[in-house]
Amino acid sequence: MTTRDTAEAMLAVALEEAELGAAEGGVPIGAALFGPDGTVLGRGHNRRVQDDDPATHAETAAFRAAGRRPHYHDTVMVTTLSPCWYCSGLVRQFGIGEVIIGEAASFSGGHEWLADNGVRITVLGDLRCAELMSEFIARRPDVWFEDIGEARGD
Amino acid sequence: MTTRDTAEAMLAVALEEAELGAAEGGVPIGAALFGPDGTVLGRGHNRRVQDDDPATHAETAAFRAAGRRPHYHDTVMVTTLSPCWYCSGLVRQFGIGEVIIGEAASFSGGHEWLADNGVRITVLGDLRCAELMSEFIARRPDVWFEDIGEARGD
Repeated sequence: MTTRDTAEAMLAVALEEAELGAAEGGVPIGAALFGPDGTVLGRGHNRRVQDDDPATHAETAAFRAAGRRPHYHDTVMVTTLSPCWYCSGLVRQFGIGEVIIGEAASFSGGHEWLADNGVRITVLGDLRCAELMSEFIARRPDVWFEDIGEARGD
Repeated sequence: MTTRDTAEAMLAVALEEAELGAAEGGVPIGAALFGPDGTVLGRGHNRRVQDDDPATHAETAAFRAAGRRPHYHDTVMVTTLSPCWYCSGLVRQFGIGEVIIGEAASFSGGHEWLADNGVRITVLGDLRCAELMSEFIARRPDVWFEDIGEARGD
C-alpha cells in the first residue's frame, strides 16, 4: 500500500491534469496511472467539453495514454474524484491493484465496490480537488449531470 | 422491451462491426447504440490491435460515436459479446436502459449485475458471434487475455 506522503505526491500529477481541464473550460477531473516503480505510465483529464467526447473520463484518458500492457495488477490509478461506475469498471476489469482518490465528497462512484472486490483504496480528502469540483458543479450543473448520466429531460 | 426479431436485426449492425474488426486483424467484437426510434446513434468495434488502444472496446467505441446526449435512458446498447466490467460500468453510469447481447458463452462479463440493477438484458445466443470469438481466442489467446486484463506474466 502506498504511503500517505507518496499518495499525495502522486495526486499532484492528477490534480495538474484537473487544473488543465479547468483552464480549458472542461470538467475538472484528472487522473494518472503509475507503474510499480512510481513512474507515470499515462495521464489525462476529462474531455467531454473539449472534444465533445462523452467516453473520455479522466481515468480512461490516463489508461489509454498508458497504452497496451500485458497486465495492470501492479499499477496504481490516481484520480482527483471518486471513480464513476464506468471508470470503476475499468479498474476492476483490468485488475488495477490500487486506486488513490483525491476526494469522494462531491461525488461517490464505485470505490467501495472496488474495495469489496480486493482493490486497495485510499481517499485523501484533498481540499483543492473538492474546490475544483464544487466550483464547476455550481457554474455548469448541466455539463456535470450530463457527465455522470444524470441529466434531466427527454 | 425489444422483440426478438427486432433485437436480431439490431444485432446485425453490431455483427457487421465485429466482422470489420476481424478483417482488420483485431479483436472481433462490435457494438451499436440505438435510439428509441430504432436509429443507430453510434457504432464501432474494439480497436486494441488496430490503434494500440486498450481503452476502446466495442461498446465504448459505439458510445463515443453517438456523441454527447443529455441522457441515455431510452437508448439500447447492442453488442456481440457479454459486456466486460468496463463496458458494464459504462452502461450503468450512463443509465442505458437496455442491452442486447449476441452471446455470453465465450465470455461472461457484468450483464447479470446490470440486470440486478434494472437494465433490461437479452442474450440471443448467436452462433456467428460465438464462432468469431472462439476462432479469435484459439488463434490469438495472448491478445484476448490482454483485452480482458487476464494476461499472465509480470
